[in-house]
Amino acid sequence: MQKELFCNAPIGVFDSGVGGLTVVREIMRQLPNERIVYFGDTARVPYGSKSRETVTRFSRQIVRFLQTQNVKAIVIACNTASAFALDELEKEVDIPIIGVVKPGARTALEATHNGKIGVIATEATIGSGIYKRYIEENNENVNVIGKACPLFVPLAEEGLWEDPVTDEIARRYLAELIDIDIDTLILGCTHYPLLRSTVAKIMGDKVTLVNPAYETARELKELLEKEGLESRKRPELGTELYQFFVSDAADKFQKFANSIIPYGILSAKVIHIDEY
Amino acid sequence: MQKELFCNAPIGVFDSGVGGLTVVREIMRQLPNERIVYFGDTARVPYGSKSRETVTRFSRQIVRFLQTQNVKAIVIACNTASAFALDELEKEVDIPIIGVVKPGARTALEATHNGKIGVIATEATIGSGIYKRYIEENNENVNVIGKACPLFVPLAEEGLWEDPVTDEIARRYLAELIDIDIDTLILGCTHYPLLRSTVAKIMGDKVTLVNPAYETARELKELLEKEGLESRKRPELGTELYQFFVSDAADKFQKFANSIIPYGILSAKVIHIDEY
Repeated sequence: MQKELFCNAPIGVFDSGVGGLTVVREIMRQLPNERIVYFGDTARVPYGSKSRETVTRFSRQIVRFLQTQNVKAIVIACNTASAFALDELEKEVDIPIIGVVKPGARTALEATHNGKIGVIATEATIGSGIYKRYIEENNENVNVIGKACPLFVPLAEEGLWEDPVTDEIARRYLAELIDIDIDTLILGCTHYPLLRSTVAKIMGDKVTLVNPAYETARELKELLEKEGLESRKRPELGTELYQFFVSDAADKFQKFANSIIPYGILSAKVIHIDEY
Repeated sequence: MQKELFCNAPIGVFDSGVGGLTVVREIMRQLPNERIVYFGDTARVPYGSKSRETVTRFSRQIVRFLQTQNVKAIVIACNTASAFALDELEKEVDIPIIGVVKPGARTALEATHNGKIGVIATEATIGSGIYKRYIEENNENVNVIGKACPLFVPLAEEGLWEDPVTDEIARRYLAELIDIDIDTLILGCTHYPLLRSTVAKIMGDKVTLVNPAYETARELKELLEKEGLESRKRPELGTELYQFFVSDAADKFQKFANSIIPYGILSAKVIHIDEY
């Protein structure tokens, strides 16, 4: 393909379901000229309680699907898939592919003053130890404390973004991070920005909350510029600009998506992802 | 296969994950001579938020797998799969296949005095209207009120079987059923028996709780007798008696299973269910 045509190709973004839309929202804000093809694996969501092997297998199928859509780069907008599958998928594809973990880790390293960083995420992401490894490799004086919060995703999906029940669950999950006196907390699951105000209230204003979505969009921007892959023209708003695919329940996805991203989603298309 | 050999074949039981083990527990109690092959779809759990088409496709793959294990009958130990897939799968297989919905509905009909029955279940099961349809077809004077409780499964899986948070969530979900003055409540999701004491406390002792697992095991027993398919000999306790297969994370499954069923599970084997 000619380079100029390739520059106008879309960015592929994927997640286990709807959480990755918080990353899409940031990409829309920071890279308004870029087209996006999003895939949410709503038939097999969630990934955060599943194994490395299964999450990698699912992610590989999605990358194959995104390649049929001729994307020029891929963003893994899911912490669990970034933790388990990025290293392997990087070797298998010849277009740039980034996850959300490294950008989040880097921002946290810049933000901390006392060298105590907390990470909240799914069981799988915490179990992988990936944030801890990235951060401690870059600065051995920093301490990373991870805490799995399995109820945060269902609470966010149930719409209890600000609610006494969410407060109570958050207080339990976050207690040990407060005790340890962290000054920086990574929201290590793409659903968690939806619970940001609850987490902020409980952690207090001395703790900096890091949302990897913001930094991921920034890294994507730098990467496209470095590779000369930025879109050269501003596409018109329409179905061609942002396309959404899911593996199940398009209506429900659409409804949730419209509560997260600033543009109305015209439609989401269902595909059988296990055939890729 | 000779009939006698076939009688000694196992019962196939499946669920989206671990919830169906509450049904397995009842089958073990009521049919101690029967061998069981259980499949839990832990790679694609939960089903309760997914569509009819997807749940039917997943269930069909599982039935194909169970048939490779030469089962003599199949129990769909998942309300969502029973609601969406039973009618279709019945046409496709030549061995007896039963779900948990009809047995639960029948028990509730026998239990009610004031003709007001509540059903709590996943979004998918409630959305299917299946309990309402079965019950109202059998007695048009009975009224069925369904209520989806999406947080009950994650709360049960997080181990919060008795907890102030579970109380609060249950109070919200159950308030309208109390207002309507139901006298019978179907626990229409195989996870919910784990929260039985919370639900009982909130509903009060005038409301009869129906656990379809019990009645399903009874119906299975009757069916095997009618078809002359009961096991003729008591098998020895060992790996051959109860076999467990999952699509992901066998260790985690095993741990949870051991908190539900009375026999220690020696091992669970992982298979790729989407290849069936």
